[in-house]
Amino acid sequence: MVSIAPSPHVHPVHLANALESVRSKTPLIQCLTNTVVANFTANILLSIGAAPAMVDLPGEATEFAAIASGVLVNLGTPYAEQREGMVLAATAAGVHATPWVLDPVAVGALPVRTELARRLLDLCPAVIRGNASEIIALSGNGGGGRGVDATHGVESARDAALELARRTGAVVAVSGPIDLITDGTRSVLVHGGNELLTRVTGGGCSLGAVCAAFAAESPDLLAATVAAHAYYSLASERAAALGAGPGSFAMHFIDELAAITPAELAEKAVIA
Amino acid sequence: MVSIAPSPHVHPVHLANALESVRSKTPLIQCLTNTVVANFTANILLSIGAAPAMVDLPGEATEFAAIASGVLVNLGTPYAEQREGMVLAATAAGVHATPWVLDPVAVGALPVRTELARRLLDLCPAVIRGNASEIIALSGNGGGGRGVDATHGVESARDAALELARRTGAVVAVSGPIDLITDGTRSVLVHGGNELLTRVTGGGCSLGAVCAAFAAESPDLLAATVAAHAYYSLASERAAALGAGPGSFAMHFIDELAAITPAELAEKAVIA
Amino acid sequence: MVSIAPSPHVHPVHLANALESVRSKTPLIQCLTNTVVANFTANILLSIGAAPAMVDLPGEATEFAAIASGVLVNLGTPYAEQREGMVLAATAAGVHATPWVLDPVAVGALPVRTELARRLLDLCPAVIRGNASEIIALSGNGGGGRGVDATHGVESARDAALELARRTGAVVAVSGPIDLITDGTRSVLVHGGNELLTRVTGGGCSLGAVCAAFAAESPDLLAATVAAHAYYSLASERAAALGAGPGSFAMHFIDELAAITPAELAEKAVIA
Repeated sequence: MVSIAPSPHVHPVHLANALESVRSKTPLIQCLTNTVVANFTANILLSIGAAPAMVDLPGEATEFAAIASGVLVNLGTPYAEQREGMVLAATAAGVHATPWVLDPVAVGALPVRTELARRLLDLCPAVIRGNASEIIALSGNGGGGRGVDATHGVESARDAALELARRTGAVVAVSGPIDLITDGTRSVLVHGGNELLTRVTGGGCSLGAVCAAFAAESPDLLAATVAAHAYYSLASERAAALGAGPGSFAMHFIDELAAITPAELAEKAVIA
Repeated sequence: MVSIAPSPHVHPVHLANALESVRSKTPLIQCLTNTVVANFTANILLSIGAAPAMVDLPGEATEFAAIASGVLVNLGTPYAEQREGMVLAATAAGVHATPWVLDPVAVGALPVRTELARRLLDLCPAVIRGNASEIIALSGNGGGGRGVDATHGVESARDAALELARRTGAVVAVSGPIDLITDGTRSVLVHGGNELLTRVTGGGCSLGAVCAAFAAESPDLLAATVAAHAYYSLASERAAALGAGPGSFAMHFIDELAAITPAELAEKAVIA
Repeated sequence: MVSIAPSPHVHPVHLANALESVRSKTPLIQCLTNTVVANFTANILLSIGAAPAMVDLPGEATEFAAIASGVLVNLGTPYAEQREGMVLAATAAGVHATPWVLDPVAVGALPVRTELARRLLDLCPAVIRGNASEIIALSGNGGGGRGVDATHGVESARDAALELARRTGAVVAVSGPIDLITDGTRSVLVHGGNELLTRVTGGGCSLGAVCAAFAAESPDLLAATVAAHAYYSLASERAAALGAGPGSFAMHFIDELAAITPAELAEKAVIA
């Protein structure tokens, strides 16, 4: 990870600034996420310097979105009550011009969330983050994966990501061994990361929350999303160098997210 | 943490006895808590020597409260089904004279839980534990915080805590850098603890569960609540001395809760 | 753990083969489980080489069971929406001849899940895994425990396990200090394991998920269930040798599940 291929769109100083902003402003991130990863996601947000709040009740989602800095809507376990809260929160985020992130977990493969995802797309997410299979399914260009596992490579989702970004106006991030982030015009690749992250549940889901925190504090959503992915990849590499297995990796990963400085991020991230 | 300012109300031997009772009696603690921290809370209860049971279904909450040693009602994610279970469990706890703890997460800021909290207050909690913003909001003397974060200092909540304790008959604990615990007449401060505890989700919520375990086995609710806070603070200090970041801190914190002996608690706790 | 008492029914090579199959085939395990342990369970499945998917919505449970390799139905927090999903998933598993595991958490003690468990028994689980109190209660031969804690020893549940296996056609596993696994005719004991596993929430529940992964890839359900228990016990012993308390034990346990090789399992497991 020593060679850096500079991106024409995102400069390393953007990465440093984005992380510095999250650390100094402590964005309040409303998470409407799945029950499997809610704990890990909250701990990840705390470790990066954000403030998580898992508020998804229909009677509270609108009110909280009015004061949140950013919102995450993750479709991992969309129970009926939460589905209602998701639509309300995304709507309120739009009213308040608060960026919100859509993480379309397992869309395509499963009917309830697929219908919900299409409805949420109309509410203008600022960022859409998924694996290749999910982005392909969401764009309407192919079938789904098997649950949260991507059965497609990132490159195979490039056309779908570009189309989705152009149609919705969102920044679209395809997470994988190499991450592709695009706003429909500009595209950036983020290299690096470690495979152990795929052995910890919530590795992808929590990245969606990190994207929301970065989007909350950065005017350039493309750079914010690239920064979130580069930071995440770097932390996973550092954690993997310390850990003996997926259990200890998960612990070190949280420690490393807290430890990485903006300068280290700018120096070590590999984007192109 | 070597200097001990003795409290006129709680003697170190009370702390040792309270922990010894939990360890020897393994109180069964029914938790109606939020989905974000349920896992951490259960592990914390196991580490201190209690037996957790997350039973919150409307058709089971009453039955289980009849056999539980103590009950925790935490308002972090109060879905409709759980709200019903909470009222039933608190009611049944009253019938069986089982102490129950109210943790009014984010009341004031959010409408559904605020209304629920006021309803639960009428069911006579034995202990109310929250941060300064939550205690102020619950007492009706001010606005709310932003989610689980306290935006008020502990001292600013002293009047609210005293008023709330006198009105409800509960022991009220205001958790923060210094903890204030009062029964409306006697007040005790618990010093110490480590800031890393605020970087782990459920740090406060799980303390509510520990309060329930101590309340279950101690005739003096003020001393029990002080003991729970002092024990928690000591464990967080010991864990912080071992940990490199919030991830490893969380792991060491559980280990230290399991390792601290009653004698160590009596010797090291800083109460005034 | 050096002496091996060979079982007439399960040979060490069966254990190695079962683990090898899980590792090479990455079975997709649909989990309808409780909110307390969903995260831990998913991480355990990932660590052993399986692919977890927590899909329990009524509108998706049937569809997903059609593509899953195995299904876990755990009654720890059976909310109304999930109860409906459980019946649908178990029914669909039957249609597709997909093995599914019933983990009857706290049946007998609590009415909603007890009624649900009896209904699910009619849908022919491949494996039933519980502690002694739960198996006794499910067989209809005695009262319940207190939540997830077994108040009966494994030997006291032998008759109930045999009766339950004969009546339902399932392999029945009674987990405890010594595990008893029976298909109603053949019975195997698995020795070993470490008491720290009972200090981590989800220790038993996640074993149910591991049973589903092994059942998914092995034609002999008795051998598969024995392998799952022996593997789990061995990992807990190795983790206990590394860990200082329940927090670090949980982390090492996941690492060890990932690290154990099929050959080590065949060499070290103690079955009789």
